[in-house]
Amino acid sequence: MRMYDLILKKRNGQALSKEEIDFFISGYTSGKIPDYQAAALLMAIYFQKMTKEETAHLTLAMAHSGQVLDLSRIQGVKVDKHSTGGVGDKVSLVLAPLVASAGVKVPKMSGRGLGHTGGTIDKLESIPGFQAQLSEEEFINNVNTIGMAIAGQTANLAPADKKLYALRDTTATVDNISLIAASVMSKKIASGADKIVLDVKTGSGAFMKSEEDAMLLAREMVDIGGSVGKETIAVISDMDQPLGFKIGNALEVKEAIATLKGHGPHDLEDLCLTLGSYMLVLAHRSKDVAEAKENLLAKLQSGQAFETFKRFIAAQGGNPLAVEDPDKYLPQAKETTDLKAWDSGFISRIDAEKTGLATMLLGAGREVKESTIDLSVGISLHKKVGDKVKALDKIATIHYNDPLKAEQALTILKEAVEISPTSPEKRPLVFGIVTP
Amino acid sequence: MRMYDLILKKRNGQALSKEEIDFFISGYTSGKIPDYQAAALLMAIYFQKMTKEETAHLTLAMAHSGQVLDLSRIQGVKVDKHSTGGVGDKVSLVLAPLVASAGVKVPKMSGRGLGHTGGTIDKLESIPGFQAQLSEEEFINNVNTIGMAIAGQTANLAPADKKLYALRDTTATVDNISLIAASVMSKKIASGADKIVLDVKTGSGAFMKSEEDAMLLAREMVDIGGSVGKETIAVISDMDQPLGFKIGNALEVKEAIATLKGHGPHDLEDLCLTLGSYMLVLAHRSKDVAEAKENLLAKLQSGQAFETFKRFIAAQGGNPLAVEDPDKYLPQAKETTDLKAWDSGFISRIDAEKTGLATMLLGAGREVKESTIDLSVGISLHKKVGDKVKALDKIATIHYNDPLKAEQALTILKEAVEISPTSPEKRPLVFGIVTP
Repeated sequence: MRMYDLILKKRNGQALSKEEIDFFISGYTSGKIPDYQAAALLMAIYFQKMTKEETAHLTLAMAHSGQVLDLSRIQGVKVDKHSTGGVGDKVSLVLAPLVASAGVKVPKMSGRGLGHTGGTIDKLESIPGFQAQLSEEEFINNVNTIGMAIAGQTANLAPADKKLYALRDTTATVDNISLIAASVMSKKIASGADKIVLDVKTGSGAFMKSEEDAMLLAREMVDIGGSVGKETIAVISDMDQPLGFKIGNALEVKEAIATLKGHGPHDLEDLCLTLGSYMLVLAHRSKDVAEAKENLLAKLQSGQAFETFKRFIAAQGGNPLAVEDPDKYLPQAKETTDLKAWDSGFISRIDAEKTGLATMLLGAGREVKESTIDLSVGISLHKKVGDKVKALDKIATIHYNDPLKAEQALTILKEAVEISPTSPEKRPLVFGIVTP
Repeated sequence: MRMYDLILKKRNGQALSKEEIDFFISGYTSGKIPDYQAAALLMAIYFQKMTKEETAHLTLAMAHSGQVLDLSRIQGVKVDKHSTGGVGDKVSLVLAPLVASAGVKVPKMSGRGLGHTGGTIDKLESIPGFQAQLSEEEFINNVNTIGMAIAGQTANLAPADKKLYALRDTTATVDNISLIAASVMSKKIASGADKIVLDVKTGSGAFMKSEEDAMLLAREMVDIGGSVGKETIAVISDMDQPLGFKIGNALEVKEAIATLKGHGPHDLEDLCLTLGSYMLVLAHRSKDVAEAKENLLAKLQSGQAFETFKRFIAAQGGNPLAVEDPDKYLPQAKETTDLKAWDSGFISRIDAEKTGLATMLLGAGREVKESTIDLSVGISLHKKVGDKVKALDKIATIHYNDPLKAEQALTILKEAVEISPTSPEKRPLVFGIVTP
């Protein structure tokens, strides 16, 4: 088999066989197939697309390019959740303990943030002492005893995907539905869960700007899940404005804790309840979504979800006092400055991508992989889209340590916000559900 | 400027500007732009094509990626000729001295053979002592005094094209008309001639299998020539069967010498007269093609063309005796074996590509760039398409040194030849002329 022939075949619009895709992924992972041939194939795939079968083969080949976690020693149905990435997206911090407290096993591998979106591991590391690197033994034990664990992705998790993603990122071959879907699903499969709930974001802060694209991506991933025997459900949710009110690592942890205590923002709580309900249904813990939602609401109100969070943090070395009193123990920026309304009217837009970029510029996120981040800085919103404002009302507060960065962030944040004389059309929080 | 943005732009179907193409070619030549980004761009070009303007910019950028020969010290109009490559194509050996003897300056840079097609420099090296590496001084002096020189391409001749071609060859991005045209024309422009005659081959042994594709490529190259101020004419000629009767380095030199002495094969002589006529017209040595053809025929018959050949060979170190008596001085294979007709009828096909491959397998050509070649081996045809044969008539003779290779070559040669009961339709030698 020659890589040249695979490129030619795809270029000419033919589908690659399982053997050909395996040949490509194993050769590329080992370095036998050079980047330039892989780049040519990726661009040919961009133009000629991949069939469902090819996408499933690619997903499995990438999943098996490194270690596939064996979670058979965890009792019960193991359900993972993945978000395609958003701004203010602290869902995992709330959702995992919430669902775990309802008896579903949540063995979660998470990544770090890049660009305008944050990463769950970064957020968790704002809790003093928190340790994301767990041995396989610790990981499995924690899930068995507490019901959940959140660990950083190991270098050997789907290494083919890591290498290919870096190549796609420099060759303008990222935005292909099959490649995106295979990338996400390969990591989920390698992480070893039985079933998967996907939070596919759409809107200005999402990778998929349009609802249609988000639906297509969701369908592709749900189909991959089905074809590899991992039942998958996708929720299409809004990422046109940030989720909740807080953006920035420590700030988001505080908001997650508030939500687990039952007084979080409505959109965040609603989304966690929706995603969690599907996790319960997939795990056969509830007979339907309505029952599941009631069940989860009870876990929030009884404090059991918060208890699970505390145990999870403690088990991974985090300071329990920080969970009880985050305002005292979590890193806090030295200064604040406010964005005030320049007019009266309605907030008609808080562009999620721009808000994310402003937060990144403050130091909360990474421009490039190597950037170091400041866990304390970020943005607190006081208004959301649809809220009424009077001139000089506070719209947002910037938490900063560096005045120059605060100035840059304020400029961009101001561009993100629009005030209009009339109430804007309401966007739904959830656009749809894609089931197998 | 970022290479990523160029890839994205082309991928999305937009034309690249002169500045962008210059950025790509200079960055790629210097190694600042990696192969994988170039490969992605090439595949995007394959799908999105290039405009005439882009192709002209690319051609000039590649031509100027290395040294552009300054031939201003050569008096008169300098006309170059290029063939897209064929089997038994010894045209340059005849054409250059023929045209030079009629007063046109022919400063020619030639390449070596690869795959099923031969190279002029390889052929010339079967003349003992012949030296293809000339200094610029020698090259210019020889053209001034003899009217012609044929030198090997220097490493610094359009290095961007060399590097890009190697990349295209491994990434299935060779067959794009713009890229092929730019590759050919960049080398011709860097070689410094004023005007160019192109021999664009079509048929089984040609890169362009169909007449339509050959026409398109010819038009593209003629247009590039026009847009960079190098008047160019293309002749579309047949390469469905080998040109002449001999294939293999020393064998082809012998046939070229016979042609220069006025008793060569008709197809070879005709093609040389046609191509040569356009060279004379471009150089304003003749008022039209008919006059030019008469002029050239006279040069053949008077022996002046052959005289020029002798002077050219001697000036580049070749043994003059070998030109006078090639059967004695040129390398000769030890053994021969014949392909005999297995039936009576008409020769309806001598597949040029297969005949070329058979010759390559004998050792006359290179499978990969690093192969060493045997100058003595090859194939002599005794019949051409349309000829009548009786069973057991000799169709071809294989000249070999290695019996195993001869056996392989014979098998393939047999596949190349078809005998049919009826006379085949006659293909023209020249399909058309593409003028500015």
